[in-house]
Amino acid sequence: MSQVTIDTNEVDIVIAAFNSDLTSFLEEWRPIFSRFHLIIVQDPDLKEGLKIPKGFDVDVYTKSDIEKFLSSSSSAAMFSGYSCRYFGYLVSKKKYIVSIDDDCSPAKDNNGDIVDIVTQHITNLKTPATPLFFNTLYDPYRKGADFVRGYPFSLRTGVPCVLSCGLWLNFADYDAPTQALKPELRNTRYVDAVMTVPKNSMMPMSGVNIAFDREIVGPSILPALKLTKEGKYRWETMEDIWCGLVVKVICDHLQLGVKTGIPYVWRNERGSAIDSLKKEWQGVKLMEELVPFFQTLKLSNDAVTAEACVMEMAAAIEKGIGGSRLELANAADNMVEWVKIRKEVESRVLG
Amino acid sequence: MSQVTIDTNEVDIVIAAFNSDLTSFLEEWRPIFSRFHLIIVQDPDLKEGLKIPKGFDVDVYTKSDIEKFLSSSSSAAMFSGYSCRYFGYLVSKKKYIVSIDDDCSPAKDNNGDIVDIVTQHITNLKTPATPLFFNTLYDPYRKGADFVRGYPFSLRTGVPCVLSCGLWLNFADYDAPTQALKPELRNTRYVDAVMTVPKNSMMPMSGVNIAFDREIVGPSILPALKLTKEGKYRWETMEDIWCGLVVKVICDHLQLGVKTGIPYVWRNERGSAIDSLKKEWQGVKLMEELVPFFQTLKLSNDAVTAEACVMEMAAAIEKGIGGSRLELANAADNMVEWVKIRKEVESRVLG
Repeated sequence: MSQVTIDTNEVDIVIAAFNSDLTSFLEEWRPIFSRFHLIIVQDPDLKEGLKIPKGFDVDVYTKSDIEKFLSSSSSAAMFSGYSCRYFGYLVSKKKYIVSIDDDCSPAKDNNGDIVDIVTQHITNLKTPATPLFFNTLYDPYRKGADFVRGYPFSLRTGVPCVLSCGLWLNFADYDAPTQALKPELRNTRYVDAVMTVPKNSMMPMSGVNIAFDREIVGPSILPALKLTKEGKYRWETMEDIWCGLVVKVICDHLQLGVKTGIPYVWRNERGSAIDSLKKEWQGVKLMEELVPFFQTLKLSNDAVTAEACVMEMAAAIEKGIGGSRLELANAADNMVEWVKIRKEVESRVLG
Repeated sequence: MSQVTIDTNEVDIVIAAFNSDLTSFLEEWRPIFSRFHLIIVQDPDLKEGLKIPKGFDVDVYTKSDIEKFLSSSSSAAMFSGYSCRYFGYLVSKKKYIVSIDDDCSPAKDNNGDIVDIVTQHITNLKTPATPLFFNTLYDPYRKGADFVRGYPFSLRTGVPCVLSCGLWLNFADYDAPTQALKPELRNTRYVDAVMTVPKNSMMPMSGVNIAFDREIVGPSILPALKLTKEGKYRWETMEDIWCGLVVKVICDHLQLGVKTGIPYVWRNERGSAIDSLKKEWQGVKLMEELVPFFQTLKLSNDAVTAEACVMEMAAAIEKGIGGSRLELANAADNMVEWVKIRKEVESRVLG
């Protein structure tokens, strides 16, 4: 139904750099990214300096920037590896953040046109979400769509959408066992749809290609879970999956919405699934415990902000699943630490 | 992941005839329907005999067949208008039923190929559904798809899928107010996806294009709600919307699944939305009451079959919302009557 206008001043694009030469990556994205402010966070383990082509409005943050910025070195550890992007979320002052991995290229839609991920993500965020009743014709706010017969009129205003989860063509975000078992598996189907994930339904959030409303839900997009043998490939990490469980429970509690679907990115291959298999089982096994926990987690009526929800949730994790496993207790600690750091950053901006 | 084979002996195609000349309708569908058994139920108000082209394996049921078949004339009233198709569901002996409206033509997919709705519906039903966790890459059982990273392995076997809700191109299944407000609104987007409706999420089921597993969930696909001014167009009825609420609650309770998405049909225009506006408001207002009721309805652990669930639900409706409105009390009565009639039919088949 709606069309949105995008103000370049309300969007930051955050990229975690795992390769020092970002030339081809940024050249591919130039038509879409050039009018926005970019925050690039260099993987703290990457020794060489970054190569960034001219013509971008960009701030780069390195390991020493992160360490200088944070008061304790234990906090800096939160931003290692894949989680370095969260440092970009921390320093952003914009309403919206669009975040993609540096192994992604622009995708083409069914008409062969380049997908503008920024416009689509912000459109997803600026139009309401409908988690309280399922619309069979997908996002009713999309141009050419509407609510299907039987959809209660009182629910047609929807709720604010605060998180937009995009998808991937070519190399999809499968886990290492799936990819190792089916090395030929590629995602070739461009599904021209976006939809709200219903209330009380948990989803596997992938950090490869997302956008969110930092002002409303920023406190809950956090780096918390570190696997003991965390690696440098998506399938060797769980930070985004954990974050997705956290943010979905909070959205359900606060009557906010999460959308999934378009925009797509083209994801290039990286890493050997078979090598990763050695490391991945910890995360796979962990999900069996995490999902029932988050599915039944109830927040109190006192928790009326994302920040308050995170604090309450951290306490519940500590008390519940945190007792049995060190990495989960650490995740709860990191959630508390994240809220603390965010407050420090805010007070510096205001001070 | 899976490919299915379809046994023509396990499928009935049920069509409610509102037009006496079915020639062009059946000729269009001949390539897809000709190898299956057809059950055509004539709208009891339609006076002329049906015109059916040669070459189909078809059983036709008229008003007098319905009356002869049922022991009481009050039961026959359940099968008036749009609800006559349910008589076809009653007399079918097949495992699966595919049911479409007679104002639908075959649709074309994004490659320009005719959509085989029978193959797609039965594929949806023969592959598991995944209502317990959301898969962002849609149906993981579809060829070329799989479970996304983070999807718990213990939930990857899914649950039996018992209901497949297809969609519509051209004239979508909007309500009369929406169509009257936006007379130019047409659905032109072919979304190449099918997905499970998550547990505890209610959806507006449309009876235009559906298929179901009659053996498992047949007792809950029932004609119950009659609006006092029910008309002859979809947007003047609520029987399918009510049925969708009933069947979804039952599926959630019994750990069964509902899919929505492909296959599409091309839906032709019929009726004036503006004329229908006079009649439709009753149904629209009713949804505001029905949705919260069904969303919070809990069935007991004793209800382990669809039939037992329907009986328990009818009692809950009678006790709850049935007290305030005659049409809801009648709907509860019809649910009990439907179970009774089904039992009679079964005993005749066995006897």
